[in-house]
Amino acid sequence: MSTFLDKIEHCSTKQNSLLCIGLDTDIDLIPVSLKGKDTQFYFNKAIIDATHDIVCAYKPNSAYYEAQGRDGIDQLKKTCDYIKETYPEIPIILDAKRGDIASTNNGYAAFAFDYLQVDAITLNPYLGKFANEPFLSRKDKGCIFLCRTSNPGADEFQNLMVKDEALYMVIGKKIMTEWNEFNNCLLVIGATVPDELHTMRKTLPHATFLVPGIGKQGGDLEQTISLGKNNEGKGIIITASRSIIYTSKELDFAEKARESALSLNQQIQQIRS
Amino acid sequence: MSTFLDKIEHCSTKQNSLLCIGLDTDIDLIPVSLKGKDTQFYFNKAIIDATHDIVCAYKPNSAYYEAQGRDGIDQLKKTCDYIKETYPEIPIILDAKRGDIASTNNGYAAFAFDYLQVDAITLNPYLGKFANEPFLSRKDKGCIFLCRTSNPGADEFQNLMVKDEALYMVIGKKIMTEWNEFNNCLLVIGATVPDELHTMRKTLPHATFLVPGIGKQGGDLEQTISLGKNNEGKGIIITASRSIIYTSKELDFAEKARESALSLNQQIQQIRS
Repeated sequence: MSTFLDKIEHCSTKQNSLLCIGLDTDIDLIPVSLKGKDTQFYFNKAIIDATHDIVCAYKPNSAYYEAQGRDGIDQLKKTCDYIKETYPEIPIILDAKRGDIASTNNGYAAFAFDYLQVDAITLNPYLGKFANEPFLSRKDKGCIFLCRTSNPGADEFQNLMVKDEALYMVIGKKIMTEWNEFNNCLLVIGATVPDELHTMRKTLPHATFLVPGIGKQGGDLEQTISLGKNNEGKGIIITASRSIIYTSKELDFAEKARESALSLNQQIQQIRS
Repeated sequence: MSTFLDKIEHCSTKQNSLLCIGLDTDIDLIPVSLKGKDTQFYFNKAIIDATHDIVCAYKPNSAYYEAQGRDGIDQLKKTCDYIKETYPEIPIILDAKRGDIASTNNGYAAFAFDYLQVDAITLNPYLGKFANEPFLSRKDKGCIFLCRTSNPGADEFQNLMVKDEALYMVIGKKIMTEWNEFNNCLLVIGATVPDELHTMRKTLPHATFLVPGIGKQGGDLEQTISLGKNNEGKGIIITASRSIIYTSKELDFAEKARESALSLNQQIQQIRS
């Protein structure tokens, strides 16, 4: 059985990429001339076709589709189906930050893994390991838990000290050592907090981190890679969304997104080596 | 402008009820003979029609609808529309446990408050106040934050000690004192942890708590009410889902749900007075 980490590793090596493009497809930010039926899907399709040879994963963000209700979920499903049918080697991460009690998480797992058939999902660990079993038990799927996020104000709770360690570190360590029986857990650590990224890499040399915060949020790429990568120059998935997909708001958006993605991945590869 | 707490207070007083029925409508648990088009909606409609005079709120759980994909979202929307059109005084809480960075939370707020037009949503506070502004800024809507949940293993992180206080308490206090500018914040505290409920009531005498964990999860009703209520015998919303809506798995499910709801609310009123 191929796991999510296998699939990421395969795609990342083949395409020489650590770049995951976030499909945060905001109906208000896509070119006016594209609007009509299935706009979010056709926007995504154009972005995907233009960047499919540069990425290690795609990460549609559920909120932007939910905002459009039932039709948005349809666009999200079509997007996932398109990637799976056209570029089956590229893993799909559903960015959803879900987290509830176990019986409810069964429903969220069904949405992500059975309906959308994505390869991984982002999760909130606050309810503990037992509650997360519906995700953790899916050996072939990735469970990407929030650890230290990239947003302003993330330190409000995440950096509270529990004895002599910050909360995010207690959580991250527990997940990687006690929840990771099937080697299917990853952590979200933001590029905007290089000290925290560095600490987590030293603490968890073999973990894989999903790293948002490059681009619009202002994280420094060089620091992120040098402090975040493992000994093999891997172990990080750099995600960028708005800074890639909205490079242009005109009808050349896909072409311009390709230029941004190429440029960013070239920078990543340069720093990494 | 009427707030969520006003709406709850009004409905609770009028119907003499502290009971919120959770619409955790699992397609596999509803009567086989009901199955066909719009099953989740018709199941909910029957439950709602049978219990509308006994509740202080309804709480559809997003996961059970998402599990059915686009069609499930449609059932959820129809359910919310039906309650709003037929019983407009009954508040609707979307149980969704959402929580992301601010730009993404805009999408989740749009899903809950603009598309479904519910009155409140359950949220995960881990990303901090700034990230939650898209919800907090909606003065007329309720923001119900996870504090101490009712599930097995919830203590794994929630009871970690931060200096001399448990994490859930640090989070709960901060939300009610620093995030609650518009008096639209509530906390989730489980009935399965009476000590924690008691402590939180003593600490936050004026807060309103959403209390799951009665019923299938085994929380004690008498303890929950006596320890959780405020000085006026209010300040708690008792939620029950599976123990009400699946009382019978036959075609008398709505009638039997009414009996369970009546009995539970009578017990609540008895203990409360």
